[in-house]
This record gives sequence, structure tokens and C-alpha cells, in this order.
Amino acid sequence: MKVLVYGYGLMGKKVAHAVMNDTDLELAGVVSPVFDVQPEVPAYKSLDEVQDDIDAIIDFSHPANLDSILSYALKNKCKVVFATTGFSAEDLKKIEEASHEIALFQSYNTSYGVAMMNKMVSEFAKEFFEHHFDIEIMEKHHNQKIDSPSGTAVMLYDGINNALDDSLEPTYDRHSIHRKRERNEVGISSIRGGTIFGEHTVMFAGQDEIVEVKHTALSKEVFANGAVAALKALMNKDKGLFDLKTLY
Amino acid sequence: MKVLVYGYGLMGKKVAHAVMNDTDLELAGVVSPVFDVQPEVPAYKSLDEVQDDIDAIIDFSHPANLDSILSYALKNKCKVVFATTGFSAEDLKKIEEASHEIALFQSYNTSYGVAMMNKMVSEFAKEFFEHHFDIEIMEKHHNQKIDSPSGTAVMLYDGINNALDDSLEPTYDRHSIHRKRERNEVGISSIRGGTIFGEHTVMFAGQDEIVEVKHTALSKEVFANGAVAALKALMNKDKGLFDLKTLY
Amino acid sequence: MKVLVYGYGLMGKKVAHAVMNDTDLELAGVVSPVFDVQPEVPAYKSLDEVQDDIDAIIDFSHPANLDSILSYALKNKCKVVFATTGFSAEDLKKIEEASHEIALFQSYNTSYGVAMMNKMVSEFAKEFFEHHFDIEIMEKHHNQKIDSPSGTAVMLYDGINNALDDSLEPTYDRHSIHRKRERNEVGISSIRGGTIFGEHTVMFAGQDEIVEVKHTALSKEVFANGAVAALKALMNKDKGLFDLKTLY
Amino acid sequence: MKVLVYGYGLMGKKVAHAVMNDTDLELAGVVSPVFDVQPEVPAYKSLDEVQDDIDAIIDFSHPANLDSILSYALKNKCKVVFATTGFSAEDLKKIEEASHEIALFQSYNTSYGVAMMNKMVSEFAKEFFEHHFDIEIMEKHHNQKIDSPSGTAVMLYDGINNALDDSLEPTYDRHSIHRKRERNEVGISSIRGGTIFGEHTVMFAGQDEIVEVKHTALSKEVFANGAVAALKALMNKDKGLFDLKTLY
Repeated sequence: MKVLVYGYGLMGKKVAHAVMNDTDLELAGVVSPVFDVQPEVPAYKSLDEVQDDIDAIIDFSHPANLDSILSYALKNKCKVVFATTGFSAEDLKKIEEASHEIALFQSYNTSYGVAMMNKMVSEFAKEFFEHHFDIEIMEKHHNQKIDSPSGTAVMLYDGINNALDDSLEPTYDRHSIHRKRERNEVGISSIRGGTIFGEHTVMFAGQDEIVEVKHTALSKEVFANGAVAALKALMNKDKGLFDLKTLY
Repeated sequence: MKVLVYGYGLMGKKVAHAVMNDTDLELAGVVSPVFDVQPEVPAYKSLDEVQDDIDAIIDFSHPANLDSILSYALKNKCKVVFATTGFSAEDLKKIEEASHEIALFQSYNTSYGVAMMNKMVSEFAKEFFEHHFDIEIMEKHHNQKIDSPSGTAVMLYDGINNALDDSLEPTYDRHSIHRKRERNEVGISSIRGGTIFGEHTVMFAGQDEIVEVKHTALSKEVFANGAVAALKALMNKDKGLFDLKTLY
Repeated sequence: MKVLVYGYGLMGKKVAHAVMNDTDLELAGVVSPVFDVQPEVPAYKSLDEVQDDIDAIIDFSHPANLDSILSYALKNKCKVVFATTGFSAEDLKKIEEASHEIALFQSYNTSYGVAMMNKMVSEFAKEFFEHHFDIEIMEKHHNQKIDSPSGTAVMLYDGINNALDDSLEPTYDRHSIHRKRERNEVGISSIRGGTIFGEHTVMFAGQDEIVEVKHTALSKEVFANGAVAALKALMNKDKGLFDLKTLY
Repeated sequence: MKVLVYGYGLMGKKVAHAVMNDTDLELAGVVSPVFDVQPEVPAYKSLDEVQDDIDAIIDFSHPANLDSILSYALKNKCKVVFATTGFSAEDLKKIEEASHEIALFQSYNTSYGVAMMNKMVSEFAKEFFEHHFDIEIMEKHHNQKIDSPSGTAVMLYDGINNALDDSLEPTYDRHSIHRKRERNEVGISSIRGGTIFGEHTVMFAGQDEIVEVKHTALSKEVFANGAVAALKALMNKDKGLFDLKTLY
């Protein structure tokens, strides 16, 4: 199966490497407007240059490339794994629409462990909440990360909030408010420092007891490998939009 | 509903207190061979002395009292919550047999949070293991605890091992063995110090990522309150043997 | 030595209990404008009512009582342990001035473990920072706490900032800013839930490695006992203002 | 300054890479009996083949090479950083003897963060212990590690035990003993799973409070970079045996 990697930054390189090392997949080339190092495979400045028959694209680039990727994928019946972060609500709507014709995967975190964690906390959140446990989310990342909270923290919150019929409210800044915590409040705390790859914790705090579920990434490879695993799982799908919870 | 508390040590006192504070329950008395302080309710040296009609017993005493409790409960159609630790395989068999006639609950940990944690890790262990995650269990307790690992750690291990068709093996002492970890090995580590009420962690460690589920007890009341909650849930049962997974 | 406890809320009661149980100390009475339960010792509505000769006061009440306590203490040459939280800069200045005549202790956290932690992180912060480690502070407390960050988190920050020649800046809300972390920024995150007694972590995050120092309180008694220990250490002092770092 | 890297396994390659990237150092070659990949620098099967003038050696190989390295270093007045693990007491004695003539560094963990952690816990252990805190050590590593506990855990224990006048006793296996924890006992727990690079925690657990100091490695590069940093610090030394505590 011929795979194109879109984006050739830190993550694009790791994904290209992971595709090359996978015996089921063939790396047909990489797409990027600029290349700081010359890839060992065909390098394209845009999808317009691609002549080869492509089965799937893994996108670790930028939301600005979304239209070009979707139009190529719809025309060529490609599967696409979107691992790019920062999509707008409008972007996500376009992806959803395209998924009526082709199989697409979109997630701000591609690691298997986060997928499992997301399932766990979504499934048990309601029971904890009904037994008077408070819910809080903490995430840690490296000091170069610009946005906060992380897309993964938002995904975990959305899963939990959805399980509780959208009755929760996120709280980002306790410093500016002087009052007791509300029952339906979910504090989301972002910690930044060093080269932390990513750590996410969901805490259920009740009467004299706490249950925490925590995911720790020990490399960036875990996200590249997760994108490849998602692609392989996506191969069995005809069309539709999948995420970590629905794919596995 | 009239409740008898068997055992009047640290935990027995807390359970008696929790029963008294529960508007649905009435504390009919406490049973203990000796009393360091005089209870405010009827105090019995053995079940033979009890004249009152008892609906349920909460046992936080010692396995030596099992026969006497079971024979009383069978005769009087009492429900029983067994929160005592250290039962032998033979003891557990006796409890199972009695449960053909009356409703019984038995668990080495009565907290709601541990019940949830146990459900979580039992349910997800197989998926983690099949995705090449290693499983390890850690527990911390105060410096007065005699046995290790804790009964709760054993319960967590049993739930996980059961989910994996009894294919796992516990490892307690890595110091004495010089070899790489086996795939089906589950290390169980016991840490002791200070007045720690109880902390249990199940770790799923995979390729460059870790998922941990951790329970922390912040008081001993959490176990007393859990025993009372178990009793109230047990009231809806006619007969059978229940634990934290099957009761809630 | 005759000790007066000022404040008869949750913490005041625990301190009164701890003083009573200390063989070196005598509980001379408690002071509070209102009493929800009747104390077993002399109960005063204000310091004006106290006839007895008092050697020391432990204050777990409210900043509004500061003037009255200081004027009593200066007149009677009493030592005072201030464990009340929420003093203004002006309040702290008054305490400092009074300490030219009498021995005073003031801290927003009285536990011995926090005192040690504070020493540790103040002492090592400079070395970590100069080796390009980023510093972050996290604190967790119960869902009834109104202020954030906790006074203890502020104390830890102040100690670290002081060790770095006041070159740091606290950041409370990353959600509202979209930029990379600055070198001299110290994120302070407040997590709230359940009945958590208090957990404080200082994280030093460098290039591919993290060192964390964490304090966990397992009861409120630890603060009451700490206030009593501070009082006993204060007994050897003639005058001056002490805190956890200078007292031990 | 010309540096030779002894050992060309996973760590040897990373150290060679780190030396090459350091503008103050020159990688003169690598030494290994076998090479799975051909290095870009001179590759020697043994030190006998080395003709070049060498200023320093970084050893990430095997204790079996110790004699050969020491004899070469003594003859050529080389500094040596020993980052190899598993030295016997006899080996360590030989290193100590050689240090009367040349500057040597030996540590089972070369990361800066572990050096700081070691200083912290050695310095504060006595105060914690005298205030009735219990001390425990936990370490986590990947599933390929053969020995346990880790050399770093032993180093942390030794530092603490030394600070307490060698009055402590390590306990590796609580499963086989049924008794309360002794005061002078230090439990050392080894957890194994996945690809964990290394995590070490020293816990001080007292009456209702816990202080923990924890180091987490996020890559193996942190040890390679630490070995290079140690080498550069060693360059200012004439002779003597240094470790993480005495070097920085």
C-alpha cells in the first residue's frame, strides 16, 4: 500500500521513518513546501506534483493544507490520517463532510495509550460524578508548546463532558476567582517545562479518596507509530470519520 | 434496619460511628471479646448473647470469628458484610457455601474508589496486554502493616489475571533474580512508611508510553463508609456472594 | 506553660486537642466570638475576658483579630504562633514590628514536611535554574478552599524567587496567552477536588529529565501538630519573627 | 581535546554522537571488539591499536574492560569517565587506586538531575529520619534491564545510609517477611515495564505527611550528555576519584 506523508518537520520525518520500517506499507514520497534535509524518497512541493497512485496520506503539517489534501483525497479515493493540530470548527466540518465519501481519521493525539485512557475516563466519568467525585484534568508539555490547554486535554474533557450530557464547565484560571469549586466545574491545568513529551492526568476526587488515570509519553515516536497504526486500522474502513474511540 | 458491628478495634469503632450517623440504619450493638472503651450501644462479648432481631452484620474483626458469624447469620437470615482481611481459601469457600442461602459481601477493600479502579483495570487489561503493554502493581501502606502485598493488590492482580485467562504470574522479588522481565510476569511491589492509609497503582507500560491507574485513600473512614454503602446495596439482594465488582 | 488557642473552628479544635495531649503544655482556654460546641476548658469571647497569666497564643482564626492579639501579646510578653491565613502586607508589617519586642512565628503552613521541602527547593533552585531547568509549582486542595493559589504555594514561590534574586515571574493562567514559556516564568497551577488536605509539588524540568519535590498532607492534624511543635521551638527564643526556615 | 569512546552499543553510539556535537571536544575514535554498524570515526578493536594521543576516555562498555582501560590511562595520563554499570567491589578498588595518579569519574548514573537529587536526599535524610520519617526508595526501568535494584537506587541508598552513619538496612522483599517495618529499614522496590528510561523516587513518610523526591529520565541521551558534561568538569582536575556529588 502506497503512503504519502504530508509535512516534513520533526513529526513528518518520524512518520516517514515509521512508514518505511513497516513491512505492510510503502513510503511513496513526502510533501512539503520546503525541505531542510533531502529525503531518501520522492519529495514533492505540493500534491499537484504527485504522479504515483497513492492509497493513503498521513498529514502532520498545518491546517492551511486541509483543502488541498481533501480535494486530492476525494479525487483519488485516498484514506487520510489527520494528525495535524489546530483545526478550526470550520475545518473539522469540512473533514466530516468529506468522510461521507472516503475513510478519514482525525485526532489531536494518535498514541494508543491515550486512546485507551480516553475510553476509560469517558466510560467511568458518569459513575464517578454521580458518586460525588470531582473531576479535574492536568497536562504537562515542553517549554516550546504555544497553545494551552493541549488538544489532548480538550479531547479528554469533551469525552467526559459528553458522557455527562454536556453538563460540565471548564475552568482554566482559579487565580482570578475567589469562591468554592462548583460541582459541574472541571479545572484544566497546563504545566510547561523542559522537554516533556506530554503527560495527561484525569483526577476523580471524592470523599477521602482519589482515583487518577495518567498517560505519559516517553518519546515523539509514540505519536508517529500511533499515526501509522491508525492508518492500518483505517484500511479496513470504506468511508466515515474515525477517531481514537471509534477506530479501535 | 438493625445492624450489628462485629469487631471494636480502630475500624470497628469507625464503622459503628458510620452506622449511627446513617439515617436508614440503626446500630443494634457491637460484638467484641474485649472493649478498651465502653460503647454507647449494647456491647456483646459474643453473638450468643444477642437477643435482639438483627438484620445485618458488618464484620471488621478476625477470620477466627467466621464460623460463629456464618452460623448466626444462616440461622437468623442476616446479611453480612465481611471487611475482615486474611481469610484462608477454606474460609472463602465457607462464605461461598453460605451464600447459597443468604446475601453476603466479601472484599479486602470496601472503598468505592477501589471498586471503580478494579472495574477499570480488569476491563482494559486484556487490550493493553495484547498491545504489548507490561502490567505492574504497586501499593503503599503505613509502617504498622504486617502482611504484604496488601489484600487489595492481590484483588487487583486477580481481576487482571482473570481477564487474561489466568495466564499471568506474580513476581514479588526482583532482587533475587537476574534476568529480563518475562511477558506474562506482573511485578507486585509493597512500599511501607509513616501513616499512609493505602495507595494502589496499576501500571500499563508499553513502547514509549505508560498508562497508570492509581487510587489514594485519604482516611480510614473511607473504608468504614464503604462497608456501610456495601451493606445498603446488599439489602436489595436475596442471596448470593457479592464483591465490589458485582455489587455496584 | 499556659497556652491559649485563638479560633475554635475545625483547626482551632484540633490545635486545642493537640495542646491538651502535650505533656509539656497546659491549655489555659480557647477564644472565639461564637462556639458551636462547648469546650471542656475556659471559653472566652475575647482576650479582654482572659484573667489568667498566659505564656503563649496559637492563632488559627482570622486576620481581623490581629490587632487585638498583638496588643495583648505585647502587654503580657506572650509568644504567638500565627497559623491564620490571608494576612495583608500591612498585617505582616505589624507582625514584623511587634517582633522587635516579643518572639513570633508566622507561616501559612505549619507542617514539618513543608518546612523541609521549602528548605530543599530554596537551596537547590539556583543550581537547577542555572543548568537550564524550568521551575513550576502545582498544588491540590479540597473543593471548599476559596483562595488560589494556596498560601503554601506562594511561600514556596517566594523562597525560590528569593534564591534567584527576585528574577522570576509567576504565571497563573496559560489559557489566555499564546506564546512559548519564558525562561523566568514560574507557572503556578491550582487543582481543586474532593477532600484533599493539601499536596504541593515543585518541578524542575530540564533537557530530557525532571526532578520533582512533592509534599502530601494526609490529615489536618499535621498542621495542628506542626503549630504546637512551632510553639515549643519558639519557647527558646526571646524575640524576633520566625518562619519554618528560620525556626528549625 | 581528543576523546575516545569505549563501547559501541546503544549508549556508546549516543556518547560518540554527543562528543562529536560538542565544539570543545574532538572524537578521536571508538573502541569495541565488534561493530554492528561502521562508525564515521576511527574504529579500534582494542586500545592496543590506538596510535593517536588521547586526552580522555568515556567508558560505556563492560567491567571486563576495566584493566585494559586503567593500564592505558595510567600510561598515557588520560582522564576517564566510567559510566559502565556492574563493577565489583574489587573493580571499584582498582579505580580508586588508579585515581592516586590520574583524574577519574565513576558513577552508575551520569545525569545532572540525578546528581542534584542525590545531593538533596543525602543532605536532608538525617533531619527527616530524626523527625521519625521512614525512608523508602522506588525505581522503574524498561523490561530489558537484567539487574535490580538499579545502580542508581543503590547509589541513593548509599548516600542516605552514609548520612545516617551506616545505621540503615535495605529490604528488597517484603513478600517473604510477616512483620511490621523496622525503623532502620529502607525498602528498595524495583518496577519493570515497557521502555521506561529510568525513574527514581526517595520517599520520606512521617506522621500524616509524605515528602517525595523523584527523578525522571525522558531519554537515554540524558545519560550520554551527562557523561560528556562530567568529562568536561573532570578536565579541571589533576587527579582523584570523583562522583556526581564531588564533581559539581
